[in-house]
Amino acid sequence: MTTSQFDVLTVGNAIVDIIARAEDDFLVRENIIKASMNLIDADRAEHLYAVMGPAIEASGGSAGNTAAGLASLGGKAAYFGKVADDHLGEIFTHDIRAIGVNYGTKPLAGPPPTARSMIFVTPDGERSMNTYLGACVELGPEDVDADIVAASKVTYFEGYLWDPPRAKDAFRLAAEIAHANGQKVSITLSDPFCVDRYRGEFLELMRNGTVDIIFANEAEVKSLYETSDLATALSSIKQDVGLAAITRSEHGSMVVNGEELIEVPAHEIDVLEDTTGAGDLYAAGFLFGLARDRSLTDCAHIGGLAAAEVIQHIGPRPQVELKDLLAQSGI
Amino acid sequence: MTTSQFDVLTVGNAIVDIIARAEDDFLVRENIIKASMNLIDADRAEHLYAVMGPAIEASGGSAGNTAAGLASLGGKAAYFGKVADDHLGEIFTHDIRAIGVNYGTKPLAGPPPTARSMIFVTPDGERSMNTYLGACVELGPEDVDADIVAASKVTYFEGYLWDPPRAKDAFRLAAEIAHANGQKVSITLSDPFCVDRYRGEFLELMRNGTVDIIFANEAEVKSLYETSDLATALSSIKQDVGLAAITRSEHGSMVVNGEELIEVPAHEIDVLEDTTGAGDLYAAGFLFGLARDRSLTDCAHIGGLAAAEVIQHIGPRPQVELKDLLAQSGI
Repeated sequence: MTTSQFDVLTVGNAIVDIIARAEDDFLVRENIIKASMNLIDADRAEHLYAVMGPAIEASGGSAGNTAAGLASLGGKAAYFGKVADDHLGEIFTHDIRAIGVNYGTKPLAGPPPTARSMIFVTPDGERSMNTYLGACVELGPEDVDADIVAASKVTYFEGYLWDPPRAKDAFRLAAEIAHANGQKVSITLSDPFCVDRYRGEFLELMRNGTVDIIFANEAEVKSLYETSDLATALSSIKQDVGLAAITRSEHGSMVVNGEELIEVPAHEIDVLEDTTGAGDLYAAGFLFGLARDRSLTDCAHIGGLAAAEVIQHIGPRPQVELKDLLAQSGI
Repeated sequence: MTTSQFDVLTVGNAIVDIIARAEDDFLVRENIIKASMNLIDADRAEHLYAVMGPAIEASGGSAGNTAAGLASLGGKAAYFGKVADDHLGEIFTHDIRAIGVNYGTKPLAGPPPTARSMIFVTPDGERSMNTYLGACVELGPEDVDADIVAASKVTYFEGYLWDPPRAKDAFRLAAEIAHANGQKVSITLSDPFCVDRYRGEFLELMRNGTVDIIFANEAEVKSLYETSDLATALSSIKQDVGLAAITRSEHGSMVVNGEELIEVPAHEIDVLEDTTGAGDLYAAGFLFGLARDRSLTDCAHIGGLAAAEVIQHIGPRPQVELKDLLAQSGI
C-alpha cells in the first residue's frame, strides 16, 4: 500500500465496559442473549447494574479495541467515536490516547452520558454484552475529519454503527473520502443479531463496492446469508466482496480472497478467561499486517496472535505490548 | 467468640483504583516511592493521569478490600467509608454491596470528589500507589453507626485513616463502642511511611489497650520499632499488643500471640501479577478464621489462601468466590 500518515482509522461506538462474572442461569433469568450484544435503554441499564456482581471498568467499544490493538502492535492508528463530557468519557479518552491512538472526536456536552456496556462473563469465558448507547447516538457526519480519513490506508467501521441513527451517514461520507483518496474501506459485521437487523444494507454496501474488506465470525457470515452451512456462506461472500476474513474461535480463521481460500489455525492459549475483544483484536492484527504489506497468511496469523492475548485476561484490550509478542512470534 | 450480627466491621478510606502497568524507570522519573502509598493532591493527580498508560478501574481501598474478602469467604461483613455523590462513588458503592458487604455510609454531596488511587504495577508485580483522598477527608464520628459496631465481633481499621483529619476521631469513638460491647478492635499499620507519620500514636493505641489485634508486614513492623531486625521488632510487639499477624510476602506469615510464635508458609502461586490487595486479603482471611473460632494457625493459612488469589490477577479484590477456594483447600 502507499505511504500514509495512518495505517488504519477505526470508527465505532465509544463505550466503557463494566465487566463482571456471572453464571449461565443469571443470563437466563435476566433474559440476556448469550454471546451477543443486547441493546438496552437507561431503565434496563439501571436494573442490570443493580443485579450485577462486583465489576471492573475498562475502556472498550469494538472499533476502539481494534485501534488500541493496532497501536499496541506498533501501528499508527486513529479513531472516531463519541463520548460525553463526563467521567466515563474522560476514562475512554485517556485510555485510547494513552495507548497511542490519535483521537479527537468532540465530546458531547450534556446528556445523554457516555455509553457503557455491562458485560457478563460466564465460566466458559463467553461474554454477553448489554449496551446502553448514550452519547454514541450523536455521532454524525460532522465528526468525520476528512484529513484523517484521506491519510489512512484503511478506514474500518463497526457494523454496530448502524444502531445509532446518524452514524451510517458518517460512514458513507468517510467511505467516499477514503475511496476518493485511493484508500481502502473495511467493515466488521459485529454480531449475528446486528447482521439480522441490517442484512440488506450490509449486502448492498458489499455489492456496490462501498466496502472492500469484510470481517465476520462464523455465526455472522452464516447470518448474513441466512444459512447454517459455512461452505454456502463462503461461496456467497466471495461473489460479494474482494477480501473477507472469517474468524472461527478455536478453529482459527479463514481468508477468502476471490477464488483463494487460506486457512490458519488458532494460536495456542493456556486458559480462556474472557472472549471480550477477540474479534476486535483479530481485526487489529490482520489490518496491521495488511497495512504493512504482509502476506494474507501472515495477516491471519498476526490477527490470531493478538486475539489470543486478549482472551487470556479480563478486559477487551491488550495488557502487554503486542509488538513484543509479534517480535517473539517469528511471524 | 460470641454470636454477633457481623463477623467483622472494617473502616477505611473509600477509594476507586485506577490501575496501569509501568516500568521501574517511570516510577523514578515521576518521583513515585515504589511499593508504597504516595499521598497526592488534585494537581498531581491530574499530572499523573496524563502520563499514565491505559488503565482499568476497580473498587479498592484497603479496608474495603478486606470487607470484600470477608464477604467472599462467606463471612458477614460491614464497612464504613466516605465516597462523594458522583460516578466513582456509585461504582464503589455498587461493588462493595454486590459482593455482599453491608455499606451505608452517607455519601458526601458536592466536592471534593470520590477518592482515587493511581496504581502503577511494575513487571515484578509490585504496586506503587498514588492516592488522592478526595471525599475521604470528610469521614468523621458522625459516620459511626453504633449499632453496627456493637454487633461486630471485630472492628478493623486502616492505619491510613490517620491521613484524613477527622477519621481518627471516628476510630476512637468506634473503638470505645466495640470494647463497651465486649468486642475486639484491630488495626493494620498499612504502609511503612504511614507508620513513620504516626508511629507515636500507633504505639500509644497498642500500649493503652485501644487496639487488641495488629496486622503489619515486615517493613511496617520494622518501621514501627525503627529497627532493621525483624526479631527485635517481634520481641517488642509482643510487649505492646495481645495478638499480631506479620505478613512476609513469599515467606508466609507469623502470628505473635504473647510468648507463642506461629509460622505459616505462603500459599503456592503460578504467576505473581499484581500485589495490590495482598495484605488486605490476608487480613480478611485471618479475621474470618478468628471470628469463626478457628485456630491461629488456621487463621494464618486462610489469610495466605485469600492473599494468594488476589495477587494472581490485576485488581485488589477476589475474582472468584473465596469460600469455594477455602472449601477445596482442606484448611
